[in-house]
Amino acid sequence: MVLYVIGLGLGDEKDITVKGLEAVKSSSKIYLEAYTSLLGGSTSIERLEAYYGKKIIIADREMVESGCEKMLEESTKEDVSFLVVGDPFGATTHTDLVLRAKELNIPVKVIHNASIMNAIGCCGLQLYSFGQTISMVFFTENSKPDSFYDRVKVNRANGMHTLCLLDIKVKEQTIENMLRGRKIYEPPRFMTVNQCIEQLLEIEEIRNEKVYDENTPCIGLSRVGQDDQQIVTGTMKELLTVDFGAPLHSFIICGEMHFIEKDYFNAFKLNKN
Amino acid sequence: MVLYVIGLGLGDEKDITVKGLEAVKSSSKIYLEAYTSLLGGSTSIERLEAYYGKKIIIADREMVESGCEKMLEESTKEDVSFLVVGDPFGATTHTDLVLRAKELNIPVKVIHNASIMNAIGCCGLQLYSFGQTISMVFFTENSKPDSFYDRVKVNRANGMHTLCLLDIKVKEQTIENMLRGRKIYEPPRFMTVNQCIEQLLEIEEIRNEKVYDENTPCIGLSRVGQDDQQIVTGTMKELLTVDFGAPLHSFIICGEMHFIEKDYFNAFKLNKN
Repeated sequence: MVLYVIGLGLGDEKDITVKGLEAVKSSSKIYLEAYTSLLGGSTSIERLEAYYGKKIIIADREMVESGCEKMLEESTKEDVSFLVVGDPFGATTHTDLVLRAKELNIPVKVIHNASIMNAIGCCGLQLYSFGQTISMVFFTENSKPDSFYDRVKVNRANGMHTLCLLDIKVKEQTIENMLRGRKIYEPPRFMTVNQCIEQLLEIEEIRNEKVYDENTPCIGLSRVGQDDQQIVTGTMKELLTVDFGAPLHSFIICGEMHFIEKDYFNAFKLNKN
Repeated sequence: MVLYVIGLGLGDEKDITVKGLEAVKSSSKIYLEAYTSLLGGSTSIERLEAYYGKKIIIADREMVESGCEKMLEESTKEDVSFLVVGDPFGATTHTDLVLRAKELNIPVKVIHNASIMNAIGCCGLQLYSFGQTISMVFFTENSKPDSFYDRVKVNRANGMHTLCLLDIKVKEQTIENMLRGRKIYEPPRFMTVNQCIEQLLEIEEIRNEKVYDENTPCIGLSRVGQDDQQIVTGTMKELLTVDFGAPLHSFIICGEMHFIEKDYFNAFKLNKN
């Protein structure tokens, strides 16, 4: 019996690989990790179920973080598919699951796919020249975590580009509902390119180590890998007011650009499209 | 008319996405970029042709570097697919082709897939924490390019992991054959993990800036994304003599490891498998 860990890619139901689709069709149970990312706009669970001709069980944060015991147990008796948007080892990695399965002697087969970590190459910057990736979380009044600033500092000091992954809040509870044990969830929220730039500039103002400023060249992207993908290049100030539309958004702070990278950057400038 | 630029992923003919396969089947001409990477062991061009039910035209280095004029010309009249092992913007990027098509007003549709740049996450290290990627080329008596050393230095000084992409020589001519204009090509060569480590240590010995040494933890991988993929962790010295088998090989110099990364590292240690 096999536990298939399958990347779905970034677009819709047809971005699964042929191999992945065959594995899904041969599995008796299908789980979908659905709290750290999502497929393109209209790709609902129902649409996936119709395409596979199979029922999908949602694996929420609780289930995944508590070790997927039941799913692993099932994998000892029947073929099980665990579906992940993007790649299983992309922005959110499922190494812990693979390790648990290995300990239990359950054969694991990983079926790779595109993730934001490589598809971001569509912006024209060489993946070679990216430094560490940062995650930008929603600031609140009391919490403005700025550890990303040190990473960007190192990247920029060495000419590297920085990919910023933007926060996603799915199935979050208010503190009150959590305290009262009420399973009431807030509507999903997705950080926009604009919010990301605001937060970056807010921290630059506080830290003031001249890591970047509103004239720093950068790239805003939305819906990478989907039909209506959008790429706009410009300074932080210029992109601050661009409407990037529906989620998911991604953002890049450019480092030193090679001339081919510059050509591409210029072809996607704000006032050119 | 559309120019499809399609990633094939890393394994065999079934690692193409469903969307990619549909595009191939709807195209009148199919080109395959076949000089910077290759699919798994037995996946020959003939096997791809049989699977697609279509003839494939090989796009060699000469054709791609001279701008693919003919292919772009054809794309103005009919649907054309340009196939790339991995992802179109992965280790080898085809941004110049996309830019040329854009200039000629040819609609381009990119269909992403896994590339070594994200599938490498299967080693258990977080993709977030990688610094710049390096390319290790075959040294010759007269040429030992060591610019990678500075990149590794920055990465390691900042705790980042380093992915090393290993040289591939396909359709190379000897200098004599080139001078005489004889189209005789050498057999393909692929760098092994062992050769990469030898070259890394050779440059450390020359530069002597204590960037890494034979006790540095690292990870050797072969055939990533294929059924017989191999992952072995250990020190440079330990991996120097491990036989990683058939190509392609990849190599990682570990930076600072998080405890989950360490668990994974320990699970794939040389004497454990």
